[in-house]
Amino acid sequence: MPQAQAMSVLPVVLLGCGGVGRHLLRHIVSCRPLHANQGVSIRVVGVADSSSLLVADDVRASGLDDALLNDLCSAKSAGSPLSSLLARGHCQVFNKPEAMGKVIDAATMLGRTTGLVIVDCSATYDTVGVLKDAVNHGCCVVLANKKPLTCAYEDFKKLTSHFRQIRFESTVGAGLPVIASVTRIIASGDPVSRIVGSLSVDPRDDLSGMDVARKALILARLLGQQISMENINVESLYPSELGPEVMSTTDFLESGLAKLDETIEERVKAASLRGNVLRYVCVIGSTGCQVGLQEVPKDSALGRLRGSDNVVEIYSRCYESSPLVIQGAGAGNDTTAAGVLADIIDLQDLFQTRA
Amino acid sequence: MPQAQAMSVLPVVLLGCGGVGRHLLRHIVSCRPLHANQGVSIRVVGVADSSSLLVADDVRASGLDDALLNDLCSAKSAGSPLSSLLARGHCQVFNKPEAMGKVIDAATMLGRTTGLVIVDCSATYDTVGVLKDAVNHGCCVVLANKKPLTCAYEDFKKLTSHFRQIRFESTVGAGLPVIASVTRIIASGDPVSRIVGSLSVDPRDDLSGMDVARKALILARLLGQQISMENINVESLYPSELGPEVMSTTDFLESGLAKLDETIEERVKAASLRGNVLRYVCVIGSTGCQVGLQEVPKDSALGRLRGSDNVVEIYSRCYESSPLVIQGAGAGNDTTAAGVLADIIDLQDLFQTRA
Repeated sequence: MPQAQAMSVLPVVLLGCGGVGRHLLRHIVSCRPLHANQGVSIRVVGVADSSSLLVADDVRASGLDDALLNDLCSAKSAGSPLSSLLARGHCQVFNKPEAMGKVIDAATMLGRTTGLVIVDCSATYDTVGVLKDAVNHGCCVVLANKKPLTCAYEDFKKLTSHFRQIRFESTVGAGLPVIASVTRIIASGDPVSRIVGSLSVDPRDDLSGMDVARKALILARLLGQQISMENINVESLYPSELGPEVMSTTDFLESGLAKLDETIEERVKAASLRGNVLRYVCVIGSTGCQVGLQEVPKDSALGRLRGSDNVVEIYSRCYESSPLVIQGAGAGNDTTAAGVLADIIDLQDLFQTRA
Repeated sequence: MPQAQAMSVLPVVLLGCGGVGRHLLRHIVSCRPLHANQGVSIRVVGVADSSSLLVADDVRASGLDDALLNDLCSAKSAGSPLSSLLARGHCQVFNKPEAMGKVIDAATMLGRTTGLVIVDCSATYDTVGVLKDAVNHGCCVVLANKKPLTCAYEDFKKLTSHFRQIRFESTVGAGLPVIASVTRIIASGDPVSRIVGSLSVDPRDDLSGMDVARKALILARLLGQQISMENINVESLYPSELGPEVMSTTDFLESGLAKLDETIEERVKAASLRGNVLRYVCVIGSTGCQVGLQEVPKDSALGRLRGSDNVVEIYSRCYESSPLVIQGAGAGNDTTAAGVLADIIDLQDLFQTRA
């Protein structure tokens, strides 16, 4: 029964306390008055980094207080371990390998009583087991971490089996409303035929296109394709003779990059003669999923792309000749954390009956 | 407690059975397998047009069956009254003025028991009273009709007082995810500073800009501005000397339009000299809300706009220098109905506990 007047309390355990995780904690604290006004309250009951877990003494009764969360962010920024916060009281610290067991304890205890949201802002495959256990215990899951959704298809299926209890907007395009929009279109019975996206490439770690491929895989699976990373045709931005197995990083930077520029420049010129431009895009269509440099019309949303914006074009029955286009900043800790926070708040109705 | 396995049943009363309403009913019927798969079921218990209400015999127990809904769409398309469907059985017809009272009866009966969604696909101010009563009785509301949200500010406040129980995506840009995106941004604590939109102008009835002004008002109120239509500075596309009080429609079409073209052409040329183009836009900013012809940079999303697409640029802390842009078809019965259906489905968690 609709009861919006009640305050929805969302207990949260955060996995990963790097740039995105810390921005999220600061956003949660600074948004308290806004969220109270909207009838929702986020209670952070635990925060884990790669080595340990800081957890409230009694997760059923209360969370970590805001002053502690602020101090936690400062401590992590300064490189201090979570255990440095023990002196603050009302909390405990568990180190690996015990830490993840304690997260599962909290999931078991809260999942089907107060409810619990496990938020994954880490960048590791290691959280998959915990997340699947949490889902089994009735918990909700919010992901900025792409990896749990891009490993085995069975894991994706398990994590999304209760689709209203998972959100993963920030795995594709940071805070851009791509997943939310595709989900809306699907729910309205409008079949999505194709998605073409220029999604952030961090050239420091994604010349091989793996980060974009992960995003493409998440979109493809969202459209119902039961595929895995090995099914995605990824065109690397560098040829294999410039790859890490053949050439050292120093050689690559000194001479490899110049060769790369030549090859790309030729393709740019050829495309230009056809009125096109080159974009590094992912294409998810009925025939599968590709990632690579493609020629796109100069005057399309993708062709006009400048700077660091992401662009996603969605084609469906309603958006057949002219796609639904979503464009904007698709990276950055602040923006990514904002996307995660919007996802958490969007789960509030599942916590509605707990006043 | 999250219980996604349960089937959420959403009883719906539809107000308005024109192009959008009929598309919605057909979408609801054709999406049955898709929605069942997602754990959600829409039960249409009543349909009203401008003169009468067709309602299921016992709204607590069952809805109008799909064959009847299909026949209803065909009957309405053929211009037949709702009463022509009475022979089908298991339903009743009430004519004005009794009809709206019967809708309120259903809202009273279902609002706090099974729950009820009142869907307004009409284009009239007359539904405001019923909608406010429905909200009082705990019902959810989904609007394609802009008018209930653009009359007195007190009515907007009342209708949106339980914000999780109302959706109105299709009042702005048909199925484009504008309201959903702005709501996400606000929930994440990212303050929206400005929205600039080119929203569909139907030149047959909106040369005066009133339709765009209504959309602008809804966006402004969503951002917290307590303003009304009279606070919006609307620049009409025609000067007052060509208005309906001064010139007949025949004269306007024969000679007025040509004068209009001259004026506009001069402004287009002047803008072009500055590297700009003219667009009929709404601007919602901290200093208020304007609707009119504005010069925008030729290479902005708005400046590059072609054809019948809508474009909305959203500026906030996360989207400060480069806005979040949403672009696509912003009109059409199919697209509008798809947006309404996505809104209804998005309410499902509030009906979660009714298996």
